[in-house]
Amino acid sequence: MSAELPSFIQKYKNIVESKKSVLCVGLDPALPNQRNNYVMPTLDRISFMKEIIEEVSSFTSIIKMNRQYLIGLNLEQIQGLNDLIHKQGMLSIIDHKLGDIGSSNDSAIFWFRKEGFDAFTHSPFAGNIKEATLAAHERDLGIIVLTLMSNPEAIIQKTAHIGSSPLYLFIAQQCLANNVDGCVVGATGNVEFQNLSKLKATLGHDILVLVPGVGAQGGNAEEILKMFGKRTMVNVGRSIIYSPNPKQEAEKFCKMFNKYIND
Amino acid sequence: MSAELPSFIQKYKNIVESKKSVLCVGLDPALPNQRNNYVMPTLDRISFMKEIIEEVSSFTSIIKMNRQYLIGLNLEQIQGLNDLIHKQGMLSIIDHKLGDIGSSNDSAIFWFRKEGFDAFTHSPFAGNIKEATLAAHERDLGIIVLTLMSNPEAIIQKTAHIGSSPLYLFIAQQCLANNVDGCVVGATGNVEFQNLSKLKATLGHDILVLVPGVGAQGGNAEEILKMFGKRTMVNVGRSIIYSPNPKQEAEKFCKMFNKYIND
Repeated sequence: MSAELPSFIQKYKNIVESKKSVLCVGLDPALPNQRNNYVMPTLDRISFMKEIIEEVSSFTSIIKMNRQYLIGLNLEQIQGLNDLIHKQGMLSIIDHKLGDIGSSNDSAIFWFRKEGFDAFTHSPFAGNIKEATLAAHERDLGIIVLTLMSNPEAIIQKTAHIGSSPLYLFIAQQCLANNVDGCVVGATGNVEFQNLSKLKATLGHDILVLVPGVGAQGGNAEEILKMFGKRTMVNVGRSIIYSPNPKQEAEKFCKMFNKYIND
Repeated sequence: MSAELPSFIQKYKNIVESKKSVLCVGLDPALPNQRNNYVMPTLDRISFMKEIIEEVSSFTSIIKMNRQYLIGLNLEQIQGLNDLIHKQGMLSIIDHKLGDIGSSNDSAIFWFRKEGFDAFTHSPFAGNIKEATLAAHERDLGIIVLTLMSNPEAIIQKTAHIGSSPLYLFIAQQCLANNVDGCVVGATGNVEFQNLSKLKATLGHDILVLVPGVGAQGGNAEEILKMFGKRTMVNVGRSIIYSPNPKQEAEKFCKMFNKYIND
């Protein structure tokens, strides 16, 4: 156990107090010709993203951008988005699912910092949670580790075992031991309640949980919010950013989540 | 088993015949201020990369760019690199380690295609090899799945089990069943010979193997080339691109690898 909280956890705690919100908005812009549903009304990703950032900021503590939707944007464009997010009093996560060897992880972390992000998501498949966390904290970035994902195919995390421990609990133990900032944990509806309870018992008292899968993906944040309270970052993406009134949707989710928090 | 080979495998076979090389050059440009060793002599990633592409092309079948070193470059810049690679008669892999949920994988694949890549690397942690392979092949891209990585911390792949199968063999089975184009498999020195033999027995006769870890990372390609022959793509990065004479280094590795191939 470390004596000191990683700085991203502390920043998040402060922002939740000032914004009175655990809402994280997933800002993943899809081009009109990219797929059939949930697409932007424009080809201009940057102007769309800036508009959403300003719309949702009163009810949102964190913006999460998924790298898979940012490909093709340059450094200055992403810096501009992160500047705006910080001006609006929010934090910014790059959902990169970084899971490379050490020297390549270091390169990504170097660039995340230049882009202006506060934290990134990490995939532990390469087994280097410890090394990646040291590299992240050296550049004052938070690291949020995929632990129990929300997609229906994510069975490896539950069915694979190391010794008698299912993989997701092995990862949770590594997260606790290595002082990571957060874990990605699916919402119920996508993840079983009993798995959440085991995670809660394993993760200690400080680690944040980033919860995707709420809204369009069908997950329910009630139980996870009752468990983790203000340590939760509940991500809602498509249901907010492609709504006719993103501000109103953000307010709706923000207030709904607050009702479930006991602490 | 599919009746037809995925088109990336066929393209690679043709190029190995014409280039007489199984060398893949890892083109991962690090800025002078990014780290202490193996850095570019310039801040201009694009001109450095174009020079390397032209230097190595006579002895190289594939260029592999790691996404962690491309962050900040825009769409047109990456398209320019891929155009040059194709003009020089080579193929191009984006080493993205894509491991997201389905809709986000689809977005990345959409952009890989726009960027002009021929194939990408996939991390199977999210359990969706089947879904990602269908999405890749729909856009005529090859998919190369992380199976047994070369970094020393990559123990999960060997120690985690699904039933009685170690995770890397479970993944290899999924690769064969779902008609993926290739698997990422570390070289000996980084990976044990007995693990390679088990993989060889599991992967069937067509799947390619992409072998990182040779050169600066200390791996030895001899045994894996004796096993997989011309199905192997041996990646050498730092030892070539940061050498005073990249062309000469590429020639050296190309000829050395050819000596180990029996078929």
